[in-house]
Amino acid sequence: MTTSDTFPQTELTRVRRTAKRASYERDTVHGVVDSTYVCQIAFAIDDQPHCIPTAHWRIGDTLYIHGSNGSRMLRALGEGVPACVCVAQVDGLVLARSAFHHSMNYRSAMIYGRFRVVEDDDEKWASMVAFMDKMQRDRWAQVREPNEKEFAATTFLALTIEEAVAKVRTGPPIDDEEDLGIPVWAGVLPLVTSFGEPVQDMAHVATTA
Amino acid sequence: MTTSDTFPQTELTRVRRTAKRASYERDTVHGVVDSTYVCQIAFAIDDQPHCIPTAHWRIGDTLYIHGSNGSRMLRALGEGVPACVCVAQVDGLVLARSAFHHSMNYRSAMIYGRFRVVEDDDEKWASMVAFMDKMQRDRWAQVREPNEKEFAATTFLALTIEEAVAKVRTGPPIDDEEDLGIPVWAGVLPLVTSFGEPVQDMAHVATTA
Repeated sequence: MTTSDTFPQTELTRVRRTAKRASYERDTVHGVVDSTYVCQIAFAIDDQPHCIPTAHWRIGDTLYIHGSNGSRMLRALGEGVPACVCVAQVDGLVLARSAFHHSMNYRSAMIYGRFRVVEDDDEKWASMVAFMDKMQRDRWAQVREPNEKEFAATTFLALTIEEAVAKVRTGPPIDDEEDLGIPVWAGVLPLVTSFGEPVQDMAHVATTA
Repeated sequence: MTTSDTFPQTELTRVRRTAKRASYERDTVHGVVDSTYVCQIAFAIDDQPHCIPTAHWRIGDTLYIHGSNGSRMLRALGEGVPACVCVAQVDGLVLARSAFHHSMNYRSAMIYGRFRVVEDDDEKWASMVAFMDKMQRDRWAQVREPNEKEFAATTFLALTIEEAVAKVRTGPPIDDEEDLGIPVWAGVLPLVTSFGEPVQDMAHVATTA
């Protein structure tokens, strides 16, 4: 399959304001999508919008989510209603010399489309493997695989990423020239997400002691 | 004004699945809302849902957002269409011994309501002060205040938090008893967001050198 390096700008994805921060590059969008463990999905049921956070992962141009068969969100999205998926990460607080020019550095992606239920068992299985391996590299090979009941109890949905845009802000505050002399600290306070000390589950001790 | 310590459970906010993770406590919802700098807002224009990340802050039971007068999102939300605001924070990856029981620790809040445009200049001003001081304590007192033009160019929207629910997961993986002997590391990989080394903007050097 040949794919273009950029997504087309559409009525939905064309960024009007601060358009210089927008990117339609496939790699940029994919990179933002992969940078978080959880996305937010907007959809409406009977004209009432919902915004639900859920774990997501990606294989190529396909974004996956999953959950229990009983989930109202999955049932609604599985019917193919219009959806908007958002991934957003704040990278820093941008402190300017004037209140007006304060900002944030961030990476975000918005994807418009409709989900489909993953009906094919092979795709469903491959998607699970990818999710485990996103949580920790090579995790799938080490854990107990789902049994028939667990496999059947879980719904997987897929959305092809084809109408998407990323927005990224980086760099220092942009103050007005005449404010540069104001004696206040200005710059960026980076926000960094990292792993803390792992907390091992000791539940097995009870069974082996 | 007397306020109850909990929000009512409504058709929109009653959590059906993993209901034990749900909280309608006002303090819990407020705490989650305050824990991030950016929220996601779902709303629809002509049946097309959008999910937009934007900075938010809170004074009491009121959630504020802001932006340029020209913003399509602010125009739509300012008309009072139904909205759903989501705040979500991943606190850790929960690695179980079976694929099925992998999970994430998180804090999330969903707020249903309609925004109003902040028309009162005093409320608008107080809201700006609160936003600056959320970015950095006592910041407002140090920076140049908005001039008339900047003040007029910015729209502030407010939403009263009265239909809201928080969901929180904490703690170790919950494996099936018969899986506890599987020789794989299980536990929680905490995800921690913290401030990195501040990066001072040196733009003033050019003017003072």
